[in-house]
This record gives sequence, structure tokens and C-alpha cells, in this order.
Amino acid sequence: MKNPIRVTVWNEYRHEKKNPKIAAIYPEGMHGAIAKYLRTQPGLEVRTATLDEPEHGLTDEVLKNTDVLTWWGHVAHKDVQDAIVEKIHARVMDGMGLIVLHSGHMCKIFRKLMGTGCMLKWREIGEKERLWVVKPGHPIVEGIGEYIEIEHTEMYGEHFDIPAPDDLIFISWFQGGEVFRSGCCFHRGCGKIFYFRPGHETYPIYHHPGVLRVLANAVRWAAPVESAKPVRGNFKPLEKVTTHG
Amino acid sequence: MKNPIRVTVWNEYRHEKKNPKIAAIYPEGMHGAIAKYLRTQPGLEVRTATLDEPEHGLTDEVLKNTDVLTWWGHVAHKDVQDAIVEKIHARVMDGMGLIVLHSGHMCKIFRKLMGTGCMLKWREIGEKERLWVVKPGHPIVEGIGEYIEIEHTEMYGEHFDIPAPDDLIFISWFQGGEVFRSGCCFHRGCGKIFYFRPGHETYPIYHHPGVLRVLANAVRWAAPVESAKPVRGNFKPLEKVTTHG
Amino acid sequence: MKNPIRVTVWNEYRHEKKNPKIAAIYPEGMHGAIAKYLRTQPGLEVRTATLDEPEHGLTDEVLKNTDVLTWWGHVAHKDVQDAIVEKIHARVMDGMGLIVLHSGHMCKIFRKLMGTGCMLKWREIGEKERLWVVKPGHPIVEGIGEYIEIEHTEMYGEHFDIPAPDDLIFISWFQGGEVFRSGCCFHRGCGKIFYFRPGHETYPIYHHPGVLRVLANAVRWAAPVESAKPVRGNFKPLEKVTTHG
Amino acid sequence: MKNPIRVTVWNEYRHEKKNPKIAAIYPEGMHGAIAKYLRTQPGLEVRTATLDEPEHGLTDEVLKNTDVLTWWGHVAHKDVQDAIVEKIHARVMDGMGLIVLHSGHMCKIFRKLMGTGCMLKWREIGEKERLWVVKPGHPIVEGIGEYIEIEHTEMYGEHFDIPAPDDLIFISWFQGGEVFRSGCCFHRGCGKIFYFRPGHETYPIYHHPGVLRVLANAVRWAAPVESAKPVRGNFKPLEKVTTHG
Repeated sequence: MKNPIRVTVWNEYRHEKKNPKIAAIYPEGMHGAIAKYLRTQPGLEVRTATLDEPEHGLTDEVLKNTDVLTWWGHVAHKDVQDAIVEKIHARVMDGMGLIVLHSGHMCKIFRKLMGTGCMLKWREIGEKERLWVVKPGHPIVEGIGEYIEIEHTEMYGEHFDIPAPDDLIFISWFQGGEVFRSGCCFHRGCGKIFYFRPGHETYPIYHHPGVLRVLANAVRWAAPVESAKPVRGNFKPLEKVTTHG
Repeated sequence: MKNPIRVTVWNEYRHEKKNPKIAAIYPEGMHGAIAKYLRTQPGLEVRTATLDEPEHGLTDEVLKNTDVLTWWGHVAHKDVQDAIVEKIHARVMDGMGLIVLHSGHMCKIFRKLMGTGCMLKWREIGEKERLWVVKPGHPIVEGIGEYIEIEHTEMYGEHFDIPAPDDLIFISWFQGGEVFRSGCCFHRGCGKIFYFRPGHETYPIYHHPGVLRVLANAVRWAAPVESAKPVRGNFKPLEKVTTHG
Repeated sequence: MKNPIRVTVWNEYRHEKKNPKIAAIYPEGMHGAIAKYLRTQPGLEVRTATLDEPEHGLTDEVLKNTDVLTWWGHVAHKDVQDAIVEKIHARVMDGMGLIVLHSGHMCKIFRKLMGTGCMLKWREIGEKERLWVVKPGHPIVEGIGEYIEIEHTEMYGEHFDIPAPDDLIFISWFQGGEVFRSGCCFHRGCGKIFYFRPGHETYPIYHHPGVLRVLANAVRWAAPVESAKPVRGNFKPLEKVTTHG
Repeated sequence: MKNPIRVTVWNEYRHEKKNPKIAAIYPEGMHGAIAKYLRTQPGLEVRTATLDEPEHGLTDEVLKNTDVLTWWGHVAHKDVQDAIVEKIHARVMDGMGLIVLHSGHMCKIFRKLMGTGCMLKWREIGEKERLWVVKPGHPIVEGIGEYIEIEHTEMYGEHFDIPAPDDLIFISWFQGGEVFRSGCCFHRGCGKIFYFRPGHETYPIYHHPGVLRVLANAVRWAAPVESAKPVRGNFKPLEKVTTHG
């Protein structure tokens, strides 16, 4: 039997503490809602971590024992310590999966991994979104229909300043006239990264069955693969080389 | 518990019957050697099929119950009936995985799926090959070191006339001076396709532990994902459309 | 000074001859409208060809002297002779560019090059489309703003059954609630292929300045590059190989 | 007539000043050799800049007037000021092309754009390299044969820790048994980036006609395209949105 996938659900966890409306939607924080769902899934071992814990809850011990890290942040990206960002980056290079959610597109670790600005167009009037599957047969859309509909949400529109994803899974349609690449897979180092757009703090999006299902699928897809570590540095030839004559 | 992945190992099975040297290496055919290994792997349900069986062993019943089809052919590509090729194509569009091996690069179904000529450079002097992993962290290289070495093999060299693979996993080095994209992933329709170069009939390559491990990994990677079938055709709008207002 | 790019604008040219409304929009056929615009562009040498000419206007001489072929077809895909399709395919492998327009997604040569079904969702109620640029900086969007808007058009929606494009340039938003990958680049053999969605026969879309500009850009992008022809077949080693000892 | 492409050839320029053997190969520096060749090409306007000039020769004025920047660095990556790296990054996002040469794989701007470690395997015994074209028909291989051979060079081997390139153009074979993705295209923001492996300081590689031809081709490929700047930020809807009705 396979070992469980060890998931750490990270949340900035500021909105929920300050805004009663948001707290009403997510009484245990967005991380609480996500973790609660993931715990119902077989083969996952789930913990949470938040910004205001020591080391943001991401100690060396936690990171070392995390197979997949999910990340939600919005108003406090700058409060995340650079040293922790470096450690997360090293773990992704080493194979840890990373799921970046919604406003996490501007978090330090995602921008560092992408190498671009990661900005986009946005609007908050609670319009409708429909996420169309453009890569049927990909493990991230297991159990998903031809689209996921979200009745009221914040809009994110193109141009989204990311490298072309290695796999584009979802494209969003918005009522106000925009589109967005809303489910994007990237490989960096030995790690797999999935950016998934849904999830604004003022809408109950992490209670939506389709959104949650995608999260669980993405965790499984992003889990590390055991293989030899990449070899780099100065090495002797494997074959006999005669360079002079 | 997940259902087993139903694998059909297909082989042209002509060389082994005509050439005693090849028969000595593969007394039960190359399909026999591959199937024997795959049967040792948990979660796989393995059958074989060969060219000279009725309908090439690929009846509607067999195809319908195949999750992943592996394909080895060489001298008799033209003997494969077009009607069977069409059925395999339909199954790949529908989600069936397809693993194309070695000289299978010129088989009808691979060429149809690629849309290009699929030709390459070749030489048969039994030189050394080293398949370097260029995508560590991909499920197809689980358990594989930084390269797979094959002491004696036929050479395949660039230019290999395929579309750029969706994921490039292995690049081969050959003693005679060439390179080759020797492990290539493609998504087509709902199906996943893996082309894997190793496997000439006159060398015991399907007894090589690294090669066999990659085959098992590829079968798991290529297994279908259960999701809504893609919807196409003429449809009414999901939103109210006022076109003349 | 560079040689001019020799463009052949191909059109099925059936709608315009049968339907007076369509003829009113395109009195010289859609090919006439496209060719007329391309002739205003420096460095292009433009001819036209249509289905009902001998050999569909695509004789060996014409194909040999075509750098980029643009293709519009809809109701008569099946009337295109397979032998001509094979010749076009060979020319694309050899480096000829191919621009496939609108309903051309179902033409024989595009389907053959893609290896998939190329079907999609559609609806004809004259709704609004907005093509968003998702790859700024690509030569195909030179001179184009952040989107192209088309007031009334036929809808094409996902799932579009193509391989993931090598470069995704445009994503369309439709009033009725769908999205579509409407500008897609592919490399096949030595040739470059661009699929561009706009262009229904009953709307004056080939009079739209943005659409025409993209066509001219695409022609330049798809023009062949002079380089050594790919080498394939049986070859002697470039290095000394000692296989037994 | 098109405006000339304004190229800035940047060089660390330390080896040439300290080591007489290197100075003998490149009496005017590697930048001098590259610039001299590029100046023979029509449509290019070439200047040079080096590390020890004020602001590394990359003032705001120079960067603003640079369409394509080529970069060679090796022993002094850390001496490049972070503020200049930020400015180069902003220019790439804005559309400036960047050609990164050989040991430049570890320079700050390339690593920042890639988001990965960019390390590789290396060895310096003057062995043979053969760069095989794997993307015939791409503008970067215009005029190039099926491979470029370099008699004596430093080896770079996989695993090369970069994101999968948007286009893979060359794969290198090395005498000692390794392979390398040695010609890699990336799009980031509005800018195009080409990593090209050849070019060690102790070999006369920037006098090699094939290598120089690729450099000129890459400069043309990487030149900016004039189009609307991507729009990002907070925007009103383009369509009427009724969210509570």
C-alpha cells in the first residue's frame, strides 16, 4: 500500500479574523474548510499552517514532511519572510507539490517560481464565472463535468502575466466579458505546481463540491515521485575521450 | 480500492516465429516478456494480443475493456487493417492510453495520431545507448536513476519527425554520435500516449529492469481518468443573448 | 532584399455562388476579400485558388510555388480529393505554412495534421465574440490591441478536439457563455500551422481590420525558413564505435 | 522599411583581461567578436557593454534603446548589481529580447526569469560536441545544417535545471557520454529569451560560422513586436452584469 500524501494547507488567515461576514462563511478559516474536505479523502494526511504562527507554521520539520503545500494569501504577501520563501522554493525544486489558490497569484513563492510579474485584471462585483475544461483526460479533472459554474465571484481577466503553462486545464468565462487561464500546471525542478483561480474570501467557494474535487485531484497529481535526485556539478566522462589526436 | 488497470500488450509477433536467435531471447515473444513483467506489478490486469489472431486480437470486446494498449510492430505495419486502426483511434480519443514501443514509431496508429511522417535516422551495429532523464519528478521516471544504460542496441537518431511532445522525458545519447528524443508524452483527445524508444528484437532489452520499470510507470500514467465526456455539436446559449438591441 | 512570400488563398467558394446574401457581403468570394487585403501588404505575392477549379487550383506547380496556403472550407470538405490533401501534407512537412480559417477546422488536411477529431461546440445566433490576446509579444499579434471584438458571429465553444497548441495566442469569450481557443500555433514537420477562428460566411468578418491584420501577421510568421532538410534513414556512425571488446 | 534591431552585446569581460591565452583568442573580448559579426548583418545596429563600465554599461538610456540584449558571464555573476538586474527584468517583461550564452546559465537575470536553479553537469577536457537540430523550420536554424559540430569544448550535461522550454531547438551530444538541451526558447512577459550553450572562453567558439549564424538568427527572432501593452489592474465590466436578479 502506498504511503499517504502529507498535505499542508496554508492560509494567510487575516480576513477571517477581521471581517465577521467572512468569518461567517469560514468559521474555521478558509484553511479549515479546505482541510476539512481533504480529510474526507482517502490517502491524504492533512495539517494546516497560517501566517501568524511562528515561522508561518512552516518550520523545517513541517516542510520536510510536507508532500504537497496549498497556499492562500491576499493582503499580507509582503509579511511572508523571505527566508521561508527560500525554503519552500528549495522543497519544490526537491519535489514538493505546490497548489496556489486565487489571490495567491501575487504571493512571493509563486512569483519567484514563475519569474514573471503574475499580475492580471480584476473586478469585484460578484458576477458569474464558468470554468471550462480544455484538457479532458487530465487527472486534475477526474470526476468533473464539462465546466464548473460559480454563481458569484470576483473576476480575474487576461492578460495574466505567467509563463505559458505546461498544461492548461481550465479557461474561465466571466459575465462581464473577460476570459482567464484559471487552471494551470507547471513543472519546476522536481516539483509540480498547480495554479487554481477559484476562492475569493467573501464567497463560499471553498464549499463548492466541484472546486473541492479539483483541489483533491490536484493534490494527488502534485504529489512527489520517488526517483533519483538530479545530478549536477563537475563530473568525469562516462566514455573514453581522446581530445588530441 | 481502485479498479485494476486493464492492459493489453500487443505484438506483431513475426520476428520471434521466423528467427531462432530472436526466439531464443524471447521464447514467448516480446509481448510475453512484457506481459510477464507487468503481471508482477500490483493493480494491473494484463492480457496479450498479436497480429495474426483474428482481428489482430483486438476485437471490440477487447478494445472496450482495455485501459492501456502497448504496441510493438516492425516489419508488418502494412498488415494491420485500417478498420482496426480506426477503432484504436476512437478508443484513444475516448481516453484509452497507448504506449508505442521502438519500431512502432512507424505503425499506422502512431502516425495517424501524430499527423507527421514519424521517420528518423537509424543504424544497427549494436552500439551503446544512454537514456538521460530530462524531466525528474515525472511519474514515468519513478524509481529510475539519472539515466538508463543499454549496452548494445540499434541506434535511432534525430531528426525524429514528430510534433513537439507535450512532455519530453528522456533524451538518448548514442556511441556513434547521435541523440534522440526517446521518451515522449502526448495528449490526444482524452487519451495519453507515450512513445518509448528501447526495444529492438535482436537484443534482450525487454529483460532490462530499467526499461521494464518505465513501461510499468507509463502504463499507470496513461490509464484513463473518469470524467465527463467532452461535449461537442450544436447547443443553445447558457446565457441570455440579445443580438439585435 | 528578401524574396516575397508567395501566398495562395484557397476557398471552397460554394456559399458565395449559391446565396445572394453571402454574395452581397463577399462579391468576389471570401478568398477575394482576403487576397485583396493581403495584396496591400508589402512583401507578399498573392494568388487565389478554389475547389471547383481543376485540381482545386492546387496543381503541383502552384503548391511548389506556395510559401503559405490559407484555407477556408465548410460544406464541401468531402469534395476535396485525397490525393491533393496528400500533396498539401507533403508540402507542410517540407516547410510550407498553412493558415486554417474558421470552419476549416473540419477540413481533411487540418484533421490529418492534428491527428484528432477537431470537432467543437457551435451555435449560430449572431452573438458577440471578443478574442483576448494571451500571448503578447508574439509576432501574430503585432499591431493588435488587448482584444479583437466581433459584434455578430457564429459561436465556437470548447471542447475543441485538437492537440494542445505549441503556442496559444487568442482565447475567445462569447456572449452565450462559452470560451474557445481561437488562435492556435502548431509546428508539424518543417511547417508552421495557424488555426484562426473568425470568419463565418454570413458576417462581414473578412472586412474587419483586426482580423485582416492577424491574417497578414500569420502569413509572415508561417513563411518557410531556409535550412537544411531533415535527414532520416540508414546512416553510418559519425564516431568510431567498438561494440565488442 | 523596418527600423533596425538595436542589439547590445554584453560581456563580463574579465577572463580576457587576466588570461593571455584567452586574450589571444578574443583580443577585443568575446563581446568584440560577437559584435563584429553582428555588424556584418543587415538590419542590426550593434553596441557593446561590459561589467566594469558604470552601471555595467546598461544605463536607463541604453536599456530603453536596446531591442535585444546578449549576455555572457561566468566568474562574476555576483558582481552584477541587483538594481540593474531588476531593470533588465522589467525590459524583458516589456518586450526586450534576451540571448543568454553558455556560462550565462547561472547569471542573475536568467535565474530570475526561469525561477529555477539553472545548474547543470559540466566538465572541461576539450571534448567534441555536436548540436543536433530538433526543430527544423524554426527561424533560429535558418541556414543551419542538420547539426553544428564543435571540435573542442567544455561539456554541459543534463540534468539542466530549467523549466521545459517553450521550444527546444538544439540537443547536444558529447563525446564523454552526456546530452544537453543546448538551444532553448522561452517567452516571458512580452519578451523572448533564447539560451544558447556554445561559447567557452578558452575555445574560439565565437569565431565558428554556425554558432555566429545562430546568434544572428536568434537576435532577429527575439526582437520585440509592436503591439498594445498588456492591460492589468481593476476594470469595469465590458458587458452589462446583473448579479442579483
